[in-house]
Amino acid sequence: MAMPSIPQVRVGLVGAGFSAGLHADAYRRVHGVDVQIAWVAAARPERASALAAELGARPAADFRAVLDDRAVDVVDLCVPSHLHAALAVEAARAGKHVIVEKPLTGFFGPAATPRARMLGQALSSADAVIAACREARVRLCYAENWVYAPPVQKARRLLAASDGPILRMVGEESHSGTHAPVNKRWDTGGGGSLIGKGCHPLGAALYLKADEGQRRRGAPIRPVSVLAEVAQLGDIPAFRESHPRYLSTVEGADVEDWGSMLIAFDDGAVAQISASDAVLGGIRNQLAVYGAKAVALCNINPNDSVQAYAPDPTVFAAEYITEKIETKAGWSFAQPDEDWMTGYPQEIQDFAESVAIGREPLADGGLARDVVAVIYGAYLSAAEGRRVDLRPFLAR
Amino acid sequence: MAMPSIPQVRVGLVGAGFSAGLHADAYRRVHGVDVQIAWVAAARPERASALAAELGARPAADFRAVLDDRAVDVVDLCVPSHLHAALAVEAARAGKHVIVEKPLTGFFGPAATPRARMLGQALSSADAVIAACREARVRLCYAENWVYAPPVQKARRLLAASDGPILRMVGEESHSGTHAPVNKRWDTGGGGSLIGKGCHPLGAALYLKADEGQRRRGAPIRPVSVLAEVAQLGDIPAFRESHPRYLSTVEGADVEDWGSMLIAFDDGAVAQISASDAVLGGIRNQLAVYGAKAVALCNINPNDSVQAYAPDPTVFAAEYITEKIETKAGWSFAQPDEDWMTGYPQEIQDFAESVAIGREPLADGGLARDVVAVIYGAYLSAAEGRRVDLRPFLAR
Amino acid sequence: MAMPSIPQVRVGLVGAGFSAGLHADAYRRVHGVDVQIAWVAAARPERASALAAELGARPAADFRAVLDDRAVDVVDLCVPSHLHAALAVEAARAGKHVIVEKPLTGFFGPAATPRARMLGQALSSADAVIAACREARVRLCYAENWVYAPPVQKARRLLAASDGPILRMVGEESHSGTHAPVNKRWDTGGGGSLIGKGCHPLGAALYLKADEGQRRRGAPIRPVSVLAEVAQLGDIPAFRESHPRYLSTVEGADVEDWGSMLIAFDDGAVAQISASDAVLGGIRNQLAVYGAKAVALCNINPNDSVQAYAPDPTVFAAEYITEKIETKAGWSFAQPDEDWMTGYPQEIQDFAESVAIGREPLADGGLARDVVAVIYGAYLSAAEGRRVDLRPFLAR
Amino acid sequence: MAMPSIPQVRVGLVGAGFSAGLHADAYRRVHGVDVQIAWVAAARPERASALAAELGARPAADFRAVLDDRAVDVVDLCVPSHLHAALAVEAARAGKHVIVEKPLTGFFGPAATPRARMLGQALSSADAVIAACREARVRLCYAENWVYAPPVQKARRLLAASDGPILRMVGEESHSGTHAPVNKRWDTGGGGSLIGKGCHPLGAALYLKADEGQRRRGAPIRPVSVLAEVAQLGDIPAFRESHPRYLSTVEGADVEDWGSMLIAFDDGAVAQISASDAVLGGIRNQLAVYGAKAVALCNINPNDSVQAYAPDPTVFAAEYITEKIETKAGWSFAQPDEDWMTGYPQEIQDFAESVAIGREPLADGGLARDVVAVIYGAYLSAAEGRRVDLRPFLAR
Repeated sequence: MAMPSIPQVRVGLVGAGFSAGLHADAYRRVHGVDVQIAWVAAARPERASALAAELGARPAADFRAVLDDRAVDVVDLCVPSHLHAALAVEAARAGKHVIVEKPLTGFFGPAATPRARMLGQALSSADAVIAACREARVRLCYAENWVYAPPVQKARRLLAASDGPILRMVGEESHSGTHAPVNKRWDTGGGGSLIGKGCHPLGAALYLKADEGQRRRGAPIRPVSVLAEVAQLGDIPAFRESHPRYLSTVEGADVEDWGSMLIAFDDGAVAQISASDAVLGGIRNQLAVYGAKAVALCNINPNDSVQAYAPDPTVFAAEYITEKIETKAGWSFAQPDEDWMTGYPQEIQDFAESVAIGREPLADGGLARDVVAVIYGAYLSAAEGRRVDLRPFLAR
Repeated sequence: MAMPSIPQVRVGLVGAGFSAGLHADAYRRVHGVDVQIAWVAAARPERASALAAELGARPAADFRAVLDDRAVDVVDLCVPSHLHAALAVEAARAGKHVIVEKPLTGFFGPAATPRARMLGQALSSADAVIAACREARVRLCYAENWVYAPPVQKARRLLAASDGPILRMVGEESHSGTHAPVNKRWDTGGGGSLIGKGCHPLGAALYLKADEGQRRRGAPIRPVSVLAEVAQLGDIPAFRESHPRYLSTVEGADVEDWGSMLIAFDDGAVAQISASDAVLGGIRNQLAVYGAKAVALCNINPNDSVQAYAPDPTVFAAEYITEKIETKAGWSFAQPDEDWMTGYPQEIQDFAESVAIGREPLADGGLARDVVAVIYGAYLSAAEGRRVDLRPFLAR
Repeated sequence: MAMPSIPQVRVGLVGAGFSAGLHADAYRRVHGVDVQIAWVAAARPERASALAAELGARPAADFRAVLDDRAVDVVDLCVPSHLHAALAVEAARAGKHVIVEKPLTGFFGPAATPRARMLGQALSSADAVIAACREARVRLCYAENWVYAPPVQKARRLLAASDGPILRMVGEESHSGTHAPVNKRWDTGGGGSLIGKGCHPLGAALYLKADEGQRRRGAPIRPVSVLAEVAQLGDIPAFRESHPRYLSTVEGADVEDWGSMLIAFDDGAVAQISASDAVLGGIRNQLAVYGAKAVALCNINPNDSVQAYAPDPTVFAAEYITEKIETKAGWSFAQPDEDWMTGYPQEIQDFAESVAIGREPLADGGLARDVVAVIYGAYLSAAEGRRVDLRPFLAR
Repeated sequence: MAMPSIPQVRVGLVGAGFSAGLHADAYRRVHGVDVQIAWVAAARPERASALAAELGARPAADFRAVLDDRAVDVVDLCVPSHLHAALAVEAARAGKHVIVEKPLTGFFGPAATPRARMLGQALSSADAVIAACREARVRLCYAENWVYAPPVQKARRLLAASDGPILRMVGEESHSGTHAPVNKRWDTGGGGSLIGKGCHPLGAALYLKADEGQRRRGAPIRPVSVLAEVAQLGDIPAFRESHPRYLSTVEGADVEDWGSMLIAFDDGAVAQISASDAVLGGIRNQLAVYGAKAVALCNINPNDSVQAYAPDPTVFAAEYITEKIETKAGWSFAQPDEDWMTGYPQEIQDFAESVAIGREPLADGGLARDVVAVIYGAYLSAAEGRRVDLRPFLAR
């Protein structure tokens, strides 16, 4: 009895850092599609070679070598955010499907730039990517893993089953702050906590209301306004004077380390989305979904599937506990498989199928652009101390 | 060996409804002070008589009978919010100490009133109460039970021990909505979710930063601005069309059923305080306190001290589960002693000692006024879509 | 209007150690009864004087001075277990009501004594106390705080409301081990984990089935057999060789540091009760109650009413977290009021009312004796590797 | 660049019921091995045809058709327990690798059979399977999914990292009872709760100590004795008289609906393993692992990764919540991907790799036999009311 032949997908991985590693692990777990990482391209040749060797792929110092290989179906951009848009456009023009890490793009320049200008430039950049993909007839896969995180998908199914509207969502991603200098500055990070972390719960919230709209009226429910505050909590004098310091947000940063957005949707629903780099105790990835007929509380991290205890911080040695925990002593909420709970394998599975079969991924360019619009709208709101009407900035 | 004689306090309880019952239970649990409820006054004589009989007190249809009794030390106002200020002033002038349920006072009038005028009138009303108490040299006890809730006091002690500043607080009170018509209208409730529920987590948050300031610099840390949104989630068309309806917020309401406030403090710290009457699953009373050196998550309700399960909603019959749960079926977080966990006995203990010994209560008129300023500042912010500078409105 | 006069109770506190301190705190919180600690008697005069001074009581080096004071109503025995029975008998004969800390009594002698003889002697000792109290017509109050812990009482009410039988209970008290040498040896502690810790969940489980029986058929449901194992986990070679050691169970101990009992009741229900001195991470006080129509899971400790986090064990300084936690670093389940959640004030309130009003306390001599019978029955079971029929050993 | 060719595995699935469906789902998720289900054999031809059609496989009414197909590498036995041993032996003799669902085998006959004879026959049966596989040089894969459940594997890694011995384990699987008549009778189920559910936590506990022993001394740490009780909680008169009944354990059952085992290991460590068919509130799959230096609490189910609430049992319609929950109303701990959390895909992945690559699976025949020995040892213990020495019954 003949089985259907398994479709093949050849990937050019661009970048060899943290998120490239996460994606590589996820590609290994794809089933039903024969995915091979053909290339690893990275600016630093030794990193490209190292990861390529590990994955059985060819290393490339120049991104264009990947584009020139006709066997490559999809380019996966695991590079710093300020490089996303240009590389995505180039890849699309070379006829490759494109996977872009979050955020799709943004504004990268001086901190003193007026927020209205930031918003405009970020959206232009997003539009350029989307247009390039549309013209080249390639898929744009937006690597927002929260859309795929099992708790978020379960919440989606539960609320859909309840057949009542989502009235309110409360989401947060926070931890004790990045150590990567690129994420602490406007010119490389495109903002601080909101763009770096807030994009995750925001992406999930926008996805859930868009999905509800599709189901209820055949078109997504979209955000219409945002009111936001941001702050540099690391600048509080009592914090600056304290030691030891357990937060890494102060030195060299020109971006916010806390932001909170109050978002209204076109049907009257609301979302409260927060992000912070000034939270101790390990990463928090949480989304509460309050519907008219049901509630779903998503605890991506922490959750109590494994509770671990060590009387001393050295007891667990090199064994992983959870992202960004400051100590391994005491009780902790150890993740048995953090990648899985956070949605990485499911995301890459969707992208592989999307490319192989020729269908839209769940997280696409439209979602990616809305995230950019809301976050830069929030920066504008916080700077001017006023509600920002998002409707002029949203793509139809 | 002689023991110190126990001080006596005689109470005139005004009101015979829900909160009067809570207070009466709490008076019974006071220790170290001989507290007697001497009078129960209520507009409806039969309710006054019933509760008075239960408590061994004298009933009064007229509040002034209580004021005329020279044996009464303190008047406890458990009456609708719009009556607080006038009765408090009268009681103070009669030389009685005053206990006022939350909120201290507010604006009570047409929904269409400009929010700036609401803010002004609410603060004038608060000032009148405070001035009357000061002039009469009586205590003003602000019955904000969250200040006394064991988890909040534990958070205060933990953060104080850590010696680092509180950077951020996230608090919420929400449930599926009041059935009391007075709380659904501006003219009797003085607003909706924010004034009715938001006052609780807000009161706790303001208390914690004030306490930190006293400890750190000998003066409270105060709020400086608020940015807020409010909404009527019950007005979402898909909700209006849905049935059955599990939320009681729509009919007859002219107030918001959701509000969220982003508050900045004078030291740069922030608070995110939300309240909603559109949340299923039982009351949520939660406050997260993120410090520079420590975190404390307060789960007043729900918490897991008792998890109960019934396969059918009738199984637990009349046994109490928790406030505002829609069903007793399934798993629930049953409160073993909700009054205690919510701070009622501790609050009344403090007030009894305050009056007996002659010291300030933890929750006083200053805190009560700040709560009024922030909440009506939030209404102004939401109406005008802009950040409101609170400093002109705060008492020195 | 006259209030009923408050009844008076005068207490002679015997002992000045850990549990005396817990009781003293609880007496301060009694309401509705005028309780005064008249005496503090302790073998070491300086400890008696110190605690007496703190409580406004008279110190006594000799227990008999307390018995000679005719004003003393009740003697509260907070002394090591092996002294309970003799002092209780003497106090009863002097006409005093008696409060005895858990366990009521036991066998105190060489570890090599046959368990059957232990069982016999422990029950004779219990019977002597009960007979002395009965003859003197004084109350015997058994200070088993779990009977009064709010989660256990809530479970009782929930299961009673459900009107179905309790089918199964699973209870445990454990922590990382006592440092008190008296509790590590048969001759002073009367056993190890089972008698020192297991008495708590066992007391609660026996109470719940006795209460159900009273409700259902007018007589308690009683235990009929026990099957048990005990072990010295601290003797595992890999533990002995390991360092650092975080458990304090090995050196100088001749008692078990783990025990587990499988108990059958006369109606066919079962209980699984465990105790251990070899558990890291803070004290565990848990009881799960599975009924035919409902479930109640009691988390006395830990529970999530306050979750605290510190990146370093020194951050919380002297602030209390929870009993027996090895580190204050990491996440912990901080008890906002451990005494209250564990039932101490409620227990002392019941005893004060019992003595003042002349009614039986909830935790009485009958419960105390059943606990002794089951635990020494368990020791016999473990030693002989067989099920022990308890019926010959239970009082009618 | 050439990739290594993917190894192929062809599966003959025997059975078309619940566990066959779970396995089929898991085969679809295998990565890195090209697994195809070639045959579905089932006694009822229409069920074989239906599942085969769904999987793109060939249906067979006769198991021997599968054995005759030389392309088949492995036979996966998803049939009732009493058929396991005979089919496994036959498959092995046909040269096929064998996957057997838990339990490997048992005693299937009259309830009145002496437990010692049950133990002997069950072990003979297990030995026959193991010998057949050894002689045929095929793998015996024991489908104990708990060995693969992410929380259990995480606990293993955490305890290994801590480098201290596991002192004690407490495990349970329970729910409100099977509806399948075969599992309620000795002649088809081979016992009740212990063999049907207790095998899971027992398998995990034996695996963890065996793994520790291999690491510490190059040989597994094995169980040496068991003391156990069993009961028919459904026979409690108050339960029989109650209605409605939410437990399905009474009618037609001749097996226990509760059992608890106290197991000692050769290094002095202990395990407490319980199973019940008389627990409301959804399946409980829990294992606590207490080590000398660390603790890991595994909450396979329930855990709080998604908490869902519905005011009414119909709200969630057909959306799955969790295994064996009696109502979808109230709060529930909804499993976002129950198969994954319970270890099915990971188990099948391991078996596919084991067969493809030629290495032992994590869960092998040795573990399977130890589970049989301990459980039938427990039945013997409970029947005779005495500790059973397991050493004579364990394979070397």
